[in-house]
Amino acid sequence: MIGAGTVGGGVVKILARKLGEFRERLGLDLRLTRIADKDSARLAALPVGDAICSGSADDVLADDQIDIVVELIGGTTVARDVILRALARGKHVITANKALIAEHGPELFAASEKAHVSLYFEASVGGGMPAIKTIREALVGNDVVSIKTIINGTCNYILTQMAAHGWSFAHALAEAQRLGYAEAQPALDIEGHDAGHKVAIMASLVHGGYVPFDRLPIEGITHIAAEDIAFAAELGYCIKLLGIIRKDGTDHAVDVRVHPAMLHREHILASVSGVFNAILLEGDAVGPILLYGRGAGELPTASAVVSDIVDVARNIVSGKPLRISMDYYAHDNALALKALADVHSRYYLRFSVVDRPGVLASIAASLGKQGISIASVMQKESHDSDFVPVIFLTHTAVEKALRAAVTEVETADYVRQKTQVIRIVD
Amino acid sequence: MIGAGTVGGGVVKILARKLGEFRERLGLDLRLTRIADKDSARLAALPVGDAICSGSADDVLADDQIDIVVELIGGTTVARDVILRALARGKHVITANKALIAEHGPELFAASEKAHVSLYFEASVGGGMPAIKTIREALVGNDVVSIKTIINGTCNYILTQMAAHGWSFAHALAEAQRLGYAEAQPALDIEGHDAGHKVAIMASLVHGGYVPFDRLPIEGITHIAAEDIAFAAELGYCIKLLGIIRKDGTDHAVDVRVHPAMLHREHILASVSGVFNAILLEGDAVGPILLYGRGAGELPTASAVVSDIVDVARNIVSGKPLRISMDYYAHDNALALKALADVHSRYYLRFSVVDRPGVLASIAASLGKQGISIASVMQKESHDSDFVPVIFLTHTAVEKALRAAVTEVETADYVRQKTQVIRIVD
Repeated sequence: MIGAGTVGGGVVKILARKLGEFRERLGLDLRLTRIADKDSARLAALPVGDAICSGSADDVLADDQIDIVVELIGGTTVARDVILRALARGKHVITANKALIAEHGPELFAASEKAHVSLYFEASVGGGMPAIKTIREALVGNDVVSIKTIINGTCNYILTQMAAHGWSFAHALAEAQRLGYAEAQPALDIEGHDAGHKVAIMASLVHGGYVPFDRLPIEGITHIAAEDIAFAAELGYCIKLLGIIRKDGTDHAVDVRVHPAMLHREHILASVSGVFNAILLEGDAVGPILLYGRGAGELPTASAVVSDIVDVARNIVSGKPLRISMDYYAHDNALALKALADVHSRYYLRFSVVDRPGVLASIAASLGKQGISIASVMQKESHDSDFVPVIFLTHTAVEKALRAAVTEVETADYVRQKTQVIRIVD
Repeated sequence: MIGAGTVGGGVVKILARKLGEFRERLGLDLRLTRIADKDSARLAALPVGDAICSGSADDVLADDQIDIVVELIGGTTVARDVILRALARGKHVITANKALIAEHGPELFAASEKAHVSLYFEASVGGGMPAIKTIREALVGNDVVSIKTIINGTCNYILTQMAAHGWSFAHALAEAQRLGYAEAQPALDIEGHDAGHKVAIMASLVHGGYVPFDRLPIEGITHIAAEDIAFAAELGYCIKLLGIIRKDGTDHAVDVRVHPAMLHREHILASVSGVFNAILLEGDAVGPILLYGRGAGELPTASAVVSDIVDVARNIVSGKPLRISMDYYAHDNALALKALADVHSRYYLRFSVVDRPGVLASIAASLGKQGISIASVMQKESHDSDFVPVIFLTHTAVEKALRAAVTEVETADYVRQKTQVIRIVD
């Protein structure tokens, strides 16, 4: 094992308790032989048993007796180097590193193919929920028609708290940071990139190619206002950061995206609160399947790493360790992604306009000109002397038409703030 | 494949669509070579491809080219014989037969061990939800502290309809039969035995021994009255047929049972409606994990059978097919089950009593004598000239004390009907 931080510490603790059972009940002669972390104090605090502790990953990589390297360093620089070296030395690798898999998957899986070893990454998506295993094994008889997922606990915690207390985003973020649910540097979570990494990995598995991560449409939650959540609630909706993976039969491209979405309160994902995550998979045979659980944390994530360790060990014991091929994660196999401009959706629009006659008609005319049909309108009394919020819910429209209409509206002199646009998901 | 009924037909349909992908993308040279069913019309209606159709299981069992036999006959007589013969001939077996695994598991797994072949049964629990895979593989790093499950779609449909429309059990059952959600002979479902089979299988996997099925406490839903559901709703609860698997640290025995239970409306399982199933697993590392989906039906169940086929094929291709040992399902490994009398629970009690002074005090006295503390009492005006329902919710009590108190109350002359007792589950 390389890296003994939060997740690594959790893995050591589980192994200390479970290795005896793995040897006896499962018949796997598993041992933790070496563990490396720069911080020797961390290692000293863990029940490492007979494992040889060291400050350098090299000691692990150089040991020819080691079959499996568990990389829990995090980040995409040192970790990438360590994994590539481990694979090149013929070691199976297990990682929880979603950024690395999502951004460097093709390179890493090519290296694992070349070395005839496996690269497992269950812990990279959804903590202890068996997301990868379910897609890759349990639903193998299905075309996975769609995935909708709440997959970042920090964002879901912030949005849940905003809804419960009427807090602003900034206040909810500060509270989440105070309680340890958000990092001091929260951008990776609140800008949607962490969710994007996980969604990219799932989309790659489902559609047999890799998602070019830099082309994935990702929108975070930083622009969600307390009043949007309040208006949504009044209309029977909640707002969640949602990952979506969808392919319609008529289109070659796969619709993969991460953004805030309004879900009707009866939607099964609407009840996923706080730091919990959920993945709603729709298979053509199995119908909807929901996985729900803690998507992060020391022991939940470690639980997934340990399940990979046992899986790879079972594969090794079976005599031919490459049980599951990963060659569809290959260099030449980039998925074509549907452009956000071509997505069809219903929309929530909050215009901030001067309260004077003719404004509503003018906005409606701009929407009508783009062929966008209005489902409902709500105008509230002003909280502010300057402008009022006017809410439109639209019927299904294509995003580029919607954006063109909003752009036209925003050229008018009665608009006071940028328009809020939130997609409504069924 | 032997048996081409509902599930078998679903498997043939999925294979017809997916075998090409299994060969190409997964690198598994899978073929459906023979299929047997007594009803040749069934076979004629299915996309069996090149498979040789026959009216006799013997044709499948006698073919030495066949590695995997899929048993989808159902029942515990012919199916048992077919599986034992297939195993004895060195064939791997896949089944969806929960009754057979639950009631004859030790014999069947002993036969598979002896023949060095595997016996897979993902479809026996929860249709297309990966219940077995999650317990056996994903949560291998956990002690599964508890399982709470809604695992019979027929019962859940009936209870959901009773709650939605105020129907009696008999009326809801008749409607379920009319719509095909309940069998003409519904006993296996409504008496709780089907749920019992699934719970027994999960308990066996979790606790490393088998559940002696004839000792499993099982109670169905036939005695649940419309008024119980209405009273429960008024108190903030719903009524579900629940499977429970639990071990507390202090007790050697495992608490495994199936019975109607009152769940608070905020409980995550309370929102599982209609024919849907859910399994709430609590792992010591991973925390709560919920699986939710359709627990039955042609394609959902077939989806699980196909995932077993691919798993076993992957194992065979790997060169050593016995990837997962099942030896803890052994003859000498019966789990000690906690007696229902020793279970601790909160209770809902509905007494049917004559409306006269002193009755409430008398019931309360009987409860008090057994040390049972009362959480709340509700007495309604009479619907009937003869008697009134009086509802007690208790704090946690041991079942034998509760039963003693109820028995004492029922000796009184003011009692008009058998007392309804429903356990409240947190």
